[in-house]
Amino acid sequence: MENFTAYNPTKLHFGKNVTDKLGETVGEYGKRVLLMYGKGSIQKNGVYERVMQQLNSINAEITEFSGIKSNPLVDDVSEAAQLGKLNHIDVIVAVGGGSVIDSAKVTALSIANNTDPWAIMTFKAKPKTTIPVIAVLTLAATGTEMNGAAVIQNHKTDEKRGYVSPLMYPKSSFLDPEFTYSVPKDYTAYGIADLIAHSLEAYFGEGDATLSDRIIEAVVKEAMEYGPLVLKEPGNYEYRSKIMWAATVALNGSTNHGRKYGDWGVHDIGHNLSYLYDTPHGATLTIAYPAWLKLQKGRIPERIAKLGNQLFGTNSADDTILLLEKFFKSIDCPIKLSDINIGKEKKKEITDQMLQTQINGMVHKLTNEDREKIVELMM
Amino acid sequence: MENFTAYNPTKLHFGKNVTDKLGETVGEYGKRVLLMYGKGSIQKNGVYERVMQQLNSINAEITEFSGIKSNPLVDDVSEAAQLGKLNHIDVIVAVGGGSVIDSAKVTALSIANNTDPWAIMTFKAKPKTTIPVIAVLTLAATGTEMNGAAVIQNHKTDEKRGYVSPLMYPKSSFLDPEFTYSVPKDYTAYGIADLIAHSLEAYFGEGDATLSDRIIEAVVKEAMEYGPLVLKEPGNYEYRSKIMWAATVALNGSTNHGRKYGDWGVHDIGHNLSYLYDTPHGATLTIAYPAWLKLQKGRIPERIAKLGNQLFGTNSADDTILLLEKFFKSIDCPIKLSDINIGKEKKKEITDQMLQTQINGMVHKLTNEDREKIVELMM
Repeated sequence: MENFTAYNPTKLHFGKNVTDKLGETVGEYGKRVLLMYGKGSIQKNGVYERVMQQLNSINAEITEFSGIKSNPLVDDVSEAAQLGKLNHIDVIVAVGGGSVIDSAKVTALSIANNTDPWAIMTFKAKPKTTIPVIAVLTLAATGTEMNGAAVIQNHKTDEKRGYVSPLMYPKSSFLDPEFTYSVPKDYTAYGIADLIAHSLEAYFGEGDATLSDRIIEAVVKEAMEYGPLVLKEPGNYEYRSKIMWAATVALNGSTNHGRKYGDWGVHDIGHNLSYLYDTPHGATLTIAYPAWLKLQKGRIPERIAKLGNQLFGTNSADDTILLLEKFFKSIDCPIKLSDINIGKEKKKEITDQMLQTQINGMVHKLTNEDREKIVELMM
Repeated sequence: MENFTAYNPTKLHFGKNVTDKLGETVGEYGKRVLLMYGKGSIQKNGVYERVMQQLNSINAEITEFSGIKSNPLVDDVSEAAQLGKLNHIDVIVAVGGGSVIDSAKVTALSIANNTDPWAIMTFKAKPKTTIPVIAVLTLAATGTEMNGAAVIQNHKTDEKRGYVSPLMYPKSSFLDPEFTYSVPKDYTAYGIADLIAHSLEAYFGEGDATLSDRIIEAVVKEAMEYGPLVLKEPGNYEYRSKIMWAATVALNGSTNHGRKYGDWGVHDIGHNLSYLYDTPHGATLTIAYPAWLKLQKGRIPERIAKLGNQLFGTNSADDTILLLEKFFKSIDCPIKLSDINIGKEKKKEITDQMLQTQINGMVHKLTNEDREKIVELMM
């Protein structure tokens, strides 16, 4: 077991009507609120109205920044930060999924340190402080509601980058499973895929962390049991709850204690696909994971088979990969690039991108030959 | 799934030599330190010296309070609080197992609120603030190093009571598995029993919390795999690590999210046995759990069998209980009162105690007939 620090300062409120305490919580930090959200789905499903009622109940002075894309752009973060500084905001309320909350986290750092957000993402600026972020989650997927990570994309430098800082934990997060009822079937499935992928990135990390491994198996089993059920009954509170909480646990530290770090090679591949084709994050992962496992199966057959044993009762690495593909297909996720209409003619473009950004894992290092092979395996 | 709040503010440092940062951490809170510990085992195994080096490195003014019993007494807490107030201490450093850390938590409340500790334990005083507690754990068992609970005994009122408050989370905890090498075999086994019992109290709680159930199964499997190994090789770092971390996870909230509360009836029985005969806490639990399960097996056969299926691959509640007893015996824990030389002649005394204190669970309510039956089943 590796040395580690277990620390997660986010106070997470989970369940029906938990946002009834949102106003009170926001009020602890001040009245000047930057309200960030996405492309307006929260205005259709009633979440916007409920959040506004809460903010109005404390007479908040609200500055709105909306339109954040599902693969969030640093330009939007810059703009939000300018707006936040201009209005001397005390606290950010982020209402949405991973893209909105990630954008809010980096916006908060940018405001508090008076720093360009991309300088933060590229480690050129070292933020020392932040302003509080309160998250209202509307999509079960990334786990950002209870961790210190954010992923942001920059079209000028052709990159999608991740950044982790203890300053970026939301102060509080509000998770009402009912807020995810209106998430469409495809994005519900991508969220399930995402939480499984997060668990697997930890599983294929560095360090003998047996209890964390068992917790990973628990999270993936939960996702595999309730994922198909929630897709059949999107308005079922229990099923939505199970998936929402599993997505949080998949990336709130619980699966990583005793490990040095996860691998995250598959996410690196996925981020590049999202960058090239604006493919939803979850969909890139169900394409990239089988390919990555096929590349690794000769190198770590026992580790893959151990996972297969726990999830599917098989002792074969090959069968584990097949059964994982079968599960992804069963929830209508793509497992090949051709499933999302990206054909052989894009092979060079994708390979060039993977070689240019030198996609890599933190543990299982990839050669250029591996990079080419993975693209082939995804076709 | 029940509504819940996931929040655990303790910063826990785990691994080899983590106490090298103890001085720095204590220094964040001040220089006047109340150092609390037990009956002196830390002076024999080198832990005391390492802690003193750390405290001296920040020129701490140290007030010592030692001699805390393994079933901690409120009189000691009172005395420690007097001493702490007299010396205007800034921070408590608790070095030991659950009894020392629990005592420190209540001492901190008593000092900060200028309140009698038993008034706190009996809800007569409502503490509003506390002073920081830093824990250095030397025994893997109770999980107190990462939760807001404490158990204290009072010989004047004939009670052993538990108290839970968000104020009681240690600010930081330091867990070096090497610090547990010198724990004798019996107390190592009681710690394993304790962490299993904590997991089961949650498992038999209220609320449909499937992911938390799976995490419980993970924790108990970890304990059942590495428990017997650490007893064979008490100086094995990996085995000590596995048990130490499993004991923390068993009671840091991870097993309870989505549940209203655990049952805790078995702990109530155990506390009464400890009160009567000063029986080590873990030993009372391996006696009480089988008896409690035998009482409940007609009432919740499916729940018991579900646990058995996960742990032992059986679908029978009876076999689950037998196999749990077998495991406890395999780590040399008592499963009957006769195993700790408490004979039939004590039956009336024990029954009277259980009836007087009205032992009960929070979920599975006990009648007087149940209480008598449980005593019989423990004989």
